[in-house]
Amino acid sequence: MSKYWSKLAAGLDPYVPGEQLKDKKYIKLNTNENPYPPSPKVIEALKTAANESLKLYPDPTGDELKITLAEYYGLDKKQVFLGNGSDEVLAFSFMAFFNPEDDILFPDITYSFYPVYANIFKINYKAVPLNDDFSIPIEHFFNSDGGVIIPNPNAPTARAISRENIEEILNYNKEKVVIIDEAYVDFGAESVVGLIDKYPNLLVIQTLSKSRSLAGLRVGYAFGHEALIDGLNRVKDSINSYTLDRLALVGAAAAVKDDEYFQTTRKKIIATRENVVSRLEGLGFNVISSKSNFIFISHSKVKAEEIFIKLKEESVLVRYFKKPRIDNYLRVSIGNDEEMDELIKALNKII
Amino acid sequence: MSKYWSKLAAGLDPYVPGEQLKDKKYIKLNTNENPYPPSPKVIEALKTAANESLKLYPDPTGDELKITLAEYYGLDKKQVFLGNGSDEVLAFSFMAFFNPEDDILFPDITYSFYPVYANIFKINYKAVPLNDDFSIPIEHFFNSDGGVIIPNPNAPTARAISRENIEEILNYNKEKVVIIDEAYVDFGAESVVGLIDKYPNLLVIQTLSKSRSLAGLRVGYAFGHEALIDGLNRVKDSINSYTLDRLALVGAAAAVKDDEYFQTTRKKIIATRENVVSRLEGLGFNVISSKSNFIFISHSKVKAEEIFIKLKEESVLVRYFKKPRIDNYLRVSIGNDEEMDELIKALNKII
Repeated sequence: MSKYWSKLAAGLDPYVPGEQLKDKKYIKLNTNENPYPPSPKVIEALKTAANESLKLYPDPTGDELKITLAEYYGLDKKQVFLGNGSDEVLAFSFMAFFNPEDDILFPDITYSFYPVYANIFKINYKAVPLNDDFSIPIEHFFNSDGGVIIPNPNAPTARAISRENIEEILNYNKEKVVIIDEAYVDFGAESVVGLIDKYPNLLVIQTLSKSRSLAGLRVGYAFGHEALIDGLNRVKDSINSYTLDRLALVGAAAAVKDDEYFQTTRKKIIATRENVVSRLEGLGFNVISSKSNFIFISHSKVKAEEIFIKLKEESVLVRYFKKPRIDNYLRVSIGNDEEMDELIKALNKII
Repeated sequence: MSKYWSKLAAGLDPYVPGEQLKDKKYIKLNTNENPYPPSPKVIEALKTAANESLKLYPDPTGDELKITLAEYYGLDKKQVFLGNGSDEVLAFSFMAFFNPEDDILFPDITYSFYPVYANIFKINYKAVPLNDDFSIPIEHFFNSDGGVIIPNPNAPTARAISRENIEEILNYNKEKVVIIDEAYVDFGAESVVGLIDKYPNLLVIQTLSKSRSLAGLRVGYAFGHEALIDGLNRVKDSINSYTLDRLALVGAAAAVKDDEYFQTTRKKIIATRENVVSRLEGLGFNVISSKSNFIFISHSKVKAEEIFIKLKEESVLVRYFKKPRIDNYLRVSIGNDEEMDELIKALNKII
């Protein structure tokens, strides 16, 4: 605490990302990164773009990337917003669509950045309790005062919600913005990007960090009706004219264009997940049904925190949240098959 | 205006960056970019860093770049904050150090993003009128209610303020944060980075966009006492854990390390500026004394707006602000000698 901090800064409770330990070599299953490298075409495009033009500002509108994304998803470029990672897109969305005095709704167990955004932008919220099986009680998201935000699949539970259920929530919140955070959608959940023309209150947020193997490039985006995208641009242009650098713009477009690579790697991750789920169940783990590149697991006999600590000793990093209702669960990112073998080997020792 | 916008979004008056016209080839003297490319060592480092590690998140603390900057400027890494361009650093600073109810002070003629930040974060401000010669009336920045922000050199006037004057402002605002925005300091003004240990209320903001020829990479930073840097980190970690991508972190460090290249190019720009100033004065222009990589000029006979329009017809882009007190001035970035020759040639036709 410093006398120089604003009241806002003093009142913050910042988000803490997964550990990035450097003391030894770990099998890193704690930040939901993709085990596969980005498409070789991305690397090639980045090397080419690393040139003298970096002396010039990027295109502040990112038009080329918007056009690439719009073509890929069957949208108009005016329905696309770009940001420095989906976290920035989320932050700007809280500013653009939610009013402090109206309670917004999100699940009680969800991406832990949501309450942080609500806090910094002074947005009131109600955390809606998930059902005991971590499924989403749809009807509790109807008729919100201020808007709704739900990840699909949810994090850290990995459970997905159906398109029909999302349509119900949209229909019961026609005057408010409903944000579906699809950071992990490419690993098996149903995207609602196709519903954008139908629902002017729908904002879909995605990222290249997970399914396109580009956590290190920081590119996220939102899709929605033009009026919603305009609202986001108003916020962005009041904070930072150029949120995406020249390299990120070029690398992102190359990633979206290489659909074959994307399909191959995401399917590999899904296959690895299905395989590891059955092996974990064999070890006595309860695994929440996952449509994501991570799984949420608990063991019938050994406490999650104990497993977390022992896995770290075995050089395997997973994520443990010491929070009500989920303090006996671990979130484990899906690595490649070899990494999952190491996980199982380590767990065999521990359990 | 959309019913889905928050009150905040509806009340915004976003910043408009300089034009990025693509209809034909222009001599681009409108966004204060550096005419020289980034150091070859930056390009090389970026090409090397464009590799498979992009699948992993960047270091959220950017430690290596912080250490590089700290060594270069004789600071501790805890006195360094990193951001996605100095615009993001400025935005976070408004949030971290200024309270809505206390008027902050900045010059009436200054970087036009400041009132935009004040507006989005609901900070009250008083715009202190510059003297008629655009110098800063130091004593009007004493005893501020909420804090002070001044660019040195100022933009778009290009006039610098002395270190002694800044110390006076710091001494007369001991309970409030004084931000010195040194985006353009490397072109001849006196930096106050060396005063950081002496003044716990001093925050200095710089950028790689101008003097390091990296507008396209989006890297800015702030220097200050550890408590101020902590305040900025609290805000950043409540918005976006990873504001700098892996490539930006690597390219920035390479740029700071190549001091020889930096010294050569910044001196070339200063020499070009001095040369073009005397030629412009020969054409009947009044040129405000510049310590920046741009100049602020007005002509005794021809109106600035007319010159602006005619220069565009001659494929030379400069910046014109249709605002009180400066609507008969043009801001002209310093390009290389050939670009300045073209400017003079075009002006010879127009005047």
